[in-house]
Amino acid sequence: MSETHHEMWEKLNLDIDAHDALLGVLGKFYGDIYMSQENRLKGAEYLDFVLSEVHGLRIKELQDAQAEGRKVIGSFCVFVPEEITLAADAVHVGLCAGAEAGTDLAEQLVPRNTCALIKSFIGFKMAKICPFIESSDLIVGETTCDGKKKAYETFNEIAPTYVMEVPQTKTDAAKALWKSEILRYMAEVEKLTGKTITTEKLKQGISITNDKRRALQRLTALRKASPAPISGRDALLINQISFYDDPIRFTTKINELCEELEQRINDQVGVAPSNAPRLLLSGCPMAVPNWKLPYVIESSGAVIVGEESCIGTRNSRDLVDESASTMEEMIDALVERYMKIDCACFTPNNERLENVTALAKNMNADGVIHYSLLFCQPYAHEALKIDKALQAENIPMLSIETDYSMEDVEQLKTRVEAFMETLA
Amino acid sequence: MSETHHEMWEKLNLDIDAHDALLGVLGKFYGDIYMSQENRLKGAEYLDFVLSEVHGLRIKELQDAQAEGRKVIGSFCVFVPEEITLAADAVHVGLCAGAEAGTDLAEQLVPRNTCALIKSFIGFKMAKICPFIESSDLIVGETTCDGKKKAYETFNEIAPTYVMEVPQTKTDAAKALWKSEILRYMAEVEKLTGKTITTEKLKQGISITNDKRRALQRLTALRKASPAPISGRDALLINQISFYDDPIRFTTKINELCEELEQRINDQVGVAPSNAPRLLLSGCPMAVPNWKLPYVIESSGAVIVGEESCIGTRNSRDLVDESASTMEEMIDALVERYMKIDCACFTPNNERLENVTALAKNMNADGVIHYSLLFCQPYAHEALKIDKALQAENIPMLSIETDYSMEDVEQLKTRVEAFMETLA
Ligand code: SF4
Ligand code: SF4
Ligand code: SF4
Ligand code: SF4
Repeated sequence: MSETHHEMWEKLNLDIDAHDALLGVLGKFYGDIYMSQENRLKGAEYLDFVLSEVHGLRIKELQDAQAEGRKVIGSFCVFVPEEITLAADAVHVGLCAGAEAGTDLAEQLVPRNTCALIKSFIGFKMAKICPFIESSDLIVGETTCDGKKKAYETFNEIAPTYVMEVPQTKTDAAKALWKSEILRYMAEVEKLTGKTITTEKLKQGISITNDKRRALQRLTALRKASPAPISGRDALLINQISFYDDPIRFTTKINELCEELEQRINDQVGVAPSNAPRLLLSGCPMAVPNWKLPYVIESSGAVIVGEESCIGTRNSRDLVDESASTMEEMIDALVERYMKIDCACFTPNNERLENVTALAKNMNADGVIHYSLLFCQPYAHEALKIDKALQAENIPMLSIETDYSMEDVEQLKTRVEAFMETLA
Repeated sequence: MSETHHEMWEKLNLDIDAHDALLGVLGKFYGDIYMSQENRLKGAEYLDFVLSEVHGLRIKELQDAQAEGRKVIGSFCVFVPEEITLAADAVHVGLCAGAEAGTDLAEQLVPRNTCALIKSFIGFKMAKICPFIESSDLIVGETTCDGKKKAYETFNEIAPTYVMEVPQTKTDAAKALWKSEILRYMAEVEKLTGKTITTEKLKQGISITNDKRRALQRLTALRKASPAPISGRDALLINQISFYDDPIRFTTKINELCEELEQRINDQVGVAPSNAPRLLLSGCPMAVPNWKLPYVIESSGAVIVGEESCIGTRNSRDLVDESASTMEEMIDALVERYMKIDCACFTPNNERLENVTALAKNMNADGVIHYSLLFCQPYAHEALKIDKALQAENIPMLSIETDYSMEDVEQLKTRVEAFMETLA
């Protein structure tokens, strides 16, 4: 890391020592899990570069944007509409955190029985190690699970947080509530940026975000091939980076990478033998650097062919209808698209049962590994339901509940390997 | 229990052996915790009778009502508007369960990390031991915490459940959603009962429910006296019975009991010495027969002077405005009243911090014991916030997290006694 980065981090008021330690662990972890992969794509250079500069050059870019008068908006959930952020020339970044740093501190503010993702973002703020949180001009929370909903109240005391109400059902009345929340967010963003969101600008925001999703859809489709042309680890990383990098650059790079994948598929080149078990991951989002389970799975000889999560297909599956042209129509198109998200926080949420089953079949998965973070009630409940839905289709499922600690790696490996044997 | 009761239970398809076992435990538990109290009120005879016949005569009454063409509606949350149920001549009963029976069965359907209250109602259904569930013509759930919201999906498969969407904030848009949910519930009740809810009938439903709340408010006010004229155990039981007994009979009986209390207060007669520590209980609802913590507290020499929970002041504090006369005005009055409920599921929920502090002061409490069920995230979060709010007022608080098992009784006793010593 260059001297300039250190200066920048000091200005952001990071705890330099703690932050250096985090980067050290992150670098080592990345080396072990990513750089050790064989037969990796050339396009993965982009991933390595973005990841290595995620706290460096990317933060510099945010600062440059701010110097130009643009704003940075951070969020924790795919319900916060990036289209609107972009329409006000602001930068939209993800703040979900996937490392155990700061957990002790976080446990002073939220109950012990809180999922690791929540403890992590609270810990990152308290330990002053997240330059994205510190760079955000607006932090947006949302009422999804109880854990986050209540944690934002506390987080708000250390980092002012604007909260959007996501309804819990998808009735017309619930959609009306969500529409009013989208309009309220739009007004908030206009106030923050001092810019008026025109139909022209919103159309552009929709198109940039849709393009990103289309690139990710293209990637998903290519992973149907056998042998698998890309590892699940790299695909997860792509999805993770989609929350940090500039969306236009990201889209270009991922489309390039997809071209390389197409070539590979033509050449029948894969990252794993064609008889490697193909597994679909499904469940809670895996934020950077939460690569534990994908590593355990793939180092056991299986290949992950899809991620059914918000850092995965749940975020890329549905596009906003681009035929809308008036402001009203575009807002309605946004409402429609966002209300298709099959988050476990909704009730009922049968769409997800259908989507997981369809995705597993579509990707020719031999089995599904359902992943929920310990103490995540919505996904723990749905794990039981998804198991039943998959059973009805004769698709085996393994249910894993874990957190960010490394203590259970061996135990997870044993369980994953035993599951893989049942697939043989 | 009489032979007739057994016949009735068989017709309700209860598991007679399991149900007998439950009643046996309940009877013994009640004897130990209630009948052992000294200096009890004469009015407590009503409580003893209702409790002893809660699965007997009361169920017979429900069947008689059904024979007359009336319907029985069961619910799990104080958000389901009893006023509307009563306006359609239906019977409104609580289905929350406070015993560990059926937990093993429940854990097949909901995650282990689910609170005891949820496991209990699911277990009661699966083990066929709850005559209220079996007597209900309509079971109403609601989107409050993640645990219940998701558990109803599963419960719905074994006992069809109608779900109301309770919003998560109290903005105007959220209130509009709640209003539409009240109207939807009204239509559902009309459909179920075949009756039209007139302004006249709704006015009556509001008045019956308000009368019940007024009787409970009167009880609360009398408990300010020192020495405490009634035990916390009996007061909790009164609140529990308010969910089972006929509301008009209940109101009459509780008003009679309040007269006896007034006499006691005049005579300076109490259930505990006037120097006994006065404690306010605050937190999750305690459903029958969840009397563990009150018993631990009061058998340690303290007296409980209030229950800040849904089976307590949270349900009786606010009345529906009776000045409303048109249907529209009455519905709005219902919306207003229900949106005052300070359930921890809301964000933000600062009202509760104010309400708990005010109640503690008002009841001259020496301290507060906050009670949350293990794995209840909303109340576990708020325990931390309430602790801070009380600290600012120099009111000591003890935070207890427990479930329905009896294993931690000794440990709880030790903690409660240590807390009481700090108050001395
Ligand atoms: S899982 Fe649900 S709460 Fe979490 S990011 Fe996705 S949509 Fe949001
Ligand atoms: S993993 Fe589950 S509990 Fe944690 S933030 Fe996401 S939905 Fe909430
Ligand atoms: S605590 Fe909340 S969810 Fe539970 S009964 Fe009360 S209002 Fe309903
Ligand atoms: S105690 Fe908590 S987790 Fe359990 S049903 Fe009530 S609000 Fe939900």
